[in-house]
Amino acid sequence: MTFVERFRAFCAERRSHLCVGLDPEPARLPVAVRGEPDPVFAFNKAIVDATLDVAPVYKPNFAFYEALGLEGWTSLKRTVEYIGGRAIVLADAKRGDIENTQRAYAKAVFDVFGFDAATVSVYPGRDAAEAFLRYEEKGVFVLCRTSNRSGDDLQNLVFDGRPLYERVAELAVEWNGRGNCGLVVGATYPAELASVVRIAPGLPILIPGAGAQGGDVEASVRAAGNNPFVVSSSRGIIYAGDGPDFAEAARRAALALRDQIEMVATH
Amino acid sequence: MTFVERFRAFCAERRSHLCVGLDPEPARLPVAVRGEPDPVFAFNKAIVDATLDVAPVYKPNFAFYEALGLEGWTSLKRTVEYIGGRAIVLADAKRGDIENTQRAYAKAVFDVFGFDAATVSVYPGRDAAEAFLRYEEKGVFVLCRTSNRSGDDLQNLVFDGRPLYERVAELAVEWNGRGNCGLVVGATYPAELASVVRIAPGLPILIPGAGAQGGDVEASVRAAGNNPFVVSSSRGIIYAGDGPDFAEAARRAALALRDQIEMVATH
Repeated sequence: MTFVERFRAFCAERRSHLCVGLDPEPARLPVAVRGEPDPVFAFNKAIVDATLDVAPVYKPNFAFYEALGLEGWTSLKRTVEYIGGRAIVLADAKRGDIENTQRAYAKAVFDVFGFDAATVSVYPGRDAAEAFLRYEEKGVFVLCRTSNRSGDDLQNLVFDGRPLYERVAELAVEWNGRGNCGLVVGATYPAELASVVRIAPGLPILIPGAGAQGGDVEASVRAAGNNPFVVSSSRGIIYAGDGPDFAEAARRAALALRDQIEMVATH
Repeated sequence: MTFVERFRAFCAERRSHLCVGLDPEPARLPVAVRGEPDPVFAFNKAIVDATLDVAPVYKPNFAFYEALGLEGWTSLKRTVEYIGGRAIVLADAKRGDIENTQRAYAKAVFDVFGFDAATVSVYPGRDAAEAFLRYEEKGVFVLCRTSNRSGDDLQNLVFDGRPLYERVAELAVEWNGRGNCGLVVGATYPAELASVVRIAPGLPILIPGAGAQGGDVEASVRAAGNNPFVVSSSRGIIYAGDGPDFAEAARRAALALRDQIEMVATH
């Protein structure tokens, strides 16, 4: 089974194109988990338990674990192991360096942690993607159009009549010899997403920026069309409540976003 | 004392513009350290002890520590602590994400590990730099022209008559309100380095790609002109020998590169 087949199968089985971002911030963790020996893992476990039947993909963002030092890495490893094969686990690490270095990053993400997929940043070009794409059974999502406004600084520079992010989408298509390359396009830019999908039909798309960042979910799902995709929300789901029922609140937020997506999704 | 003043002071005191890259690969570690309880730290410590008087800057590359799992992070933390304030310690991590995430990465690098400086990747624009630049006393080196050939894929795309990497250099100048922004330009592209220096006079430049990658050291140093700079070599120094005298071999390689740089350096 290829990565894209697994990705599609999880979405179909859960009738959901939702990705839950696991971005633990100590100051926002509910009191209910703060007394646990590993509060971050306890928090993630509760969120996963409450959302697994509607979340085909989980996306831990490495930054929030690194900010916790060694304990953060332990919590991250436990989280990946806990989810096990029950969903796609996507490493949102956006690593991007020359080949020799990027191979070490890919080893960390895929061999050490055992993630199913990862985001990469390709300012260094093909080398940065290739070191990850060599893992044929893993999904590799190339950062194309970020969800933030200052993404314009580089991504909307126009050359030969088209913006840089479109060129990145073309490159991803070129680099996709093994069929495991995807793209990241923010839900805050549905028109750009539509143009990316025209350039890269069939490539899986990770669409972050729903929820706290205010992305347009319906327009993004329409723009994704027939490409495999997930819409990702982190803060909007995991911090939906901070009381003892925080996991139930997260579940309600996840269901609401799932329903919002599925109303428009065509596949 | 600002970061640039500290950077210049270390270079002046050591009469050296050399940065030693600490990229430990298990398969290449000399037998002499393999029996140690923390072989990577033992290796780094030996390299630092042998080169400290000629290396104003050390640059651990995060990928090689991450690839070792939790033990790698412990070795990295011990390495930073061991160097202490005796040289600039630069986190080569090339993190690049939206602001909320990037703040967590900056916290990891500067607060958790205590690095003096870091590389950042700015495909997400100003946000990715700003979260690091807020640490006024730290140096932030924006990835501008990578040392690898496939860097051309994006960096040499031409818009408004100039390549993307030049626009990145311009942006770094715009973002440099606190005086702590630098740039990364590979020694493999001295002509591009010269144009970056014209755009960004006075900004400190990290020049990787000397040694194993075959960068042109003399041409790069000439191109750096009066900007503060260091030329970085990793594999060419730390793996200069693999016998029991590996540290001495590293020292000889470091001295040779230092001398090669200083023959041409004007400041």
